[in-house]
Amino acid sequence: MSETKKYNVAVVGATGAVGQKMLETLEDRNFPIQQLKLLSSSRSAGSKMVFNGEEYVLEEATPESFKDVDIALFSAGGSVSKKLAPEAVKQGAVVIDNTSAYRMAEGVPLVVPEVNEEDIKQHKGIIANPNCSTIQMVAALEPVRKALGMERVIVSTYQAVSGAGNEAADELREQSQAFLNGEDLEAEILPVKGDKNHYPIAFNALPQIDVFQENGYTFEEMKMINETKKIMHAPDLPVAATCVRLPFFTSHAESVYIEVEKEGVTVEQIKQLMEEAPGIVLEDDPSTQTYPTPLSAAEKRDVFVGRIRKDLDEEKGFHLWVVSDNLLKGAAWNSVQIAESLITNDWL
Amino acid sequence: MSETKKYNVAVVGATGAVGQKMLETLEDRNFPIQQLKLLSSSRSAGSKMVFNGEEYVLEEATPESFKDVDIALFSAGGSVSKKLAPEAVKQGAVVIDNTSAYRMAEGVPLVVPEVNEEDIKQHKGIIANPNCSTIQMVAALEPVRKALGMERVIVSTYQAVSGAGNEAADELREQSQAFLNGEDLEAEILPVKGDKNHYPIAFNALPQIDVFQENGYTFEEMKMINETKKIMHAPDLPVAATCVRLPFFTSHAESVYIEVEKEGVTVEQIKQLMEEAPGIVLEDDPSTQTYPTPLSAAEKRDVFVGRIRKDLDEEKGFHLWVVSDNLLKGAAWNSVQIAESLITNDWL
Repeated sequence: MSETKKYNVAVVGATGAVGQKMLETLEDRNFPIQQLKLLSSSRSAGSKMVFNGEEYVLEEATPESFKDVDIALFSAGGSVSKKLAPEAVKQGAVVIDNTSAYRMAEGVPLVVPEVNEEDIKQHKGIIANPNCSTIQMVAALEPVRKALGMERVIVSTYQAVSGAGNEAADELREQSQAFLNGEDLEAEILPVKGDKNHYPIAFNALPQIDVFQENGYTFEEMKMINETKKIMHAPDLPVAATCVRLPFFTSHAESVYIEVEKEGVTVEQIKQLMEEAPGIVLEDDPSTQTYPTPLSAAEKRDVFVGRIRKDLDEEKGFHLWVVSDNLLKGAAWNSVQIAESLITNDWL
Repeated sequence: MSETKKYNVAVVGATGAVGQKMLETLEDRNFPIQQLKLLSSSRSAGSKMVFNGEEYVLEEATPESFKDVDIALFSAGGSVSKKLAPEAVKQGAVVIDNTSAYRMAEGVPLVVPEVNEEDIKQHKGIIANPNCSTIQMVAALEPVRKALGMERVIVSTYQAVSGAGNEAADELREQSQAFLNGEDLEAEILPVKGDKNHYPIAFNALPQIDVFQENGYTFEEMKMINETKKIMHAPDLPVAATCVRLPFFTSHAESVYIEVEKEGVTVEQIKQLMEEAPGIVLEDDPSTQTYPTPLSAAEKRDVFVGRIRKDLDEEKGFHLWVVSDNLLKGAAWNSVQIAESLITNDWL
């Protein structure tokens, strides 16, 4: 970004897995920062972090923290956002919230800039950043929906542990080493820190991300279902999701089945849409075994798509494999993109 | 098994990941063995293995190895089966072949005993054991299809490295340790030993199992599609598959979407069908976070089913999570089950 005007920016939850990536992304993007405030829980307050070579002391996030703040990037859990985001707005900040607290709230834009950037304009102080697994899917599907219509989405996810925070990543690392040493695995965090039971993630797969809802779906699955409809402005689009946590650190992968509206669509057409789409990189060539993987997508801001195939029975059916860094496009980068859009479009 | 008559049994490929499990399963089942012959490549010939406390010297598998053999369990790769299985049959053995060599051959029964045991009767010397990921899926789906009809199957798999043999398991172990040590990952086996490119599996996911076909699907995906139709005697059933290799050692998991034929079906009905089905264990209770995982299913012969949910849009749609030990029900145990059926039904 190259801007002459500069802005006061607060990062709430700066020490978390996403917060750290927010700082890296703001640095990488040369974001026009006048003053930077790093806010955290009282536990982390007083500790120090480095941004652009300068040391910052973390302050405890309180209702008074947001005086003179222009843009507040929240990523400290839903309860912190519920308590402090309205206070930040009262003091004149625009909040970009990376938690699920306001995503489905009426009147709060839920934004993936490649899909529905215009929605940002309607904000009343809070803009919600969607769930990580949702962002990469809608970024890949929207170009198809716009060009060819969409009648159905069925997704099975392959999600990295960093989506559950730094503690979950530490747990995978420790359990993996214990397993390789022939020791017993101790599970204390995954699948969900606050839930009753914990199961090993090392060399395993857990078909539970976030807590179970009344209908037998997990909250992660319902987030993918509901947020997709809201972001795409497609309330009647049938979306089904099965979300699975897997033993890798970074990037979510998704096996996505779609049915388009238009007849006679070819794989080549969908590949071309992907090649032209903003933020999407097509990596798809079976003859050279070219396809994205969690490791190949890590530390990159794009969404990678491969394995595009026509269904063998359903004329309008296609299968895709979608991979992206869950902490970047799935969280920090998408939030910073929204902040950049606020500035360049004068929507602040 | 308790049988008075005893049989001469040969295991071809005894040192492989599946071969080792075949021996364990024959021991566990107290299989009525008169004479046991352990056959291998010339490379492993002369080395020793223990069965039921007795030491056996491996012999090189040749066309002459099958004299007086009643049952030959093949698991040494497709080319070995193509060369030696017809020779074994000529010498009077019945071959149970765990490779893909004869699975789709006209006149060769392809059998999962819980699904199509009667097909064994038609054998002309060779009975094919299906692909691991296919076996557990059809075992779980057949009770539903029989009771409620089935109009569609879409599966995304989560497959263990042991499906690619002991070398692949060693590679995961070595790469995992290297990753934890901060060293570079060397890939020489996965995704497919004989293919051009190799990618790290540790802390990663590879959307390629077996080689790519002309149509953009992998051979593993086409195996699931074609074998499912053959085993279920449902040539027109639409089946779609996306197969993914993951960094765990044992058990395949599957996210399966089905549409039943009957209207008004409930989750409870499907759960009851699973509870009554042979070889299936229902592990499904969101209120206690009960669901199967690769680690929980390892070293067990059953197929475990959980996360059964009704689709939120398609009235006849249901989602299931199916897990089983790929080396047992997916390979060795299914083969031994076929052998037991040959004996108890007098179909040898």
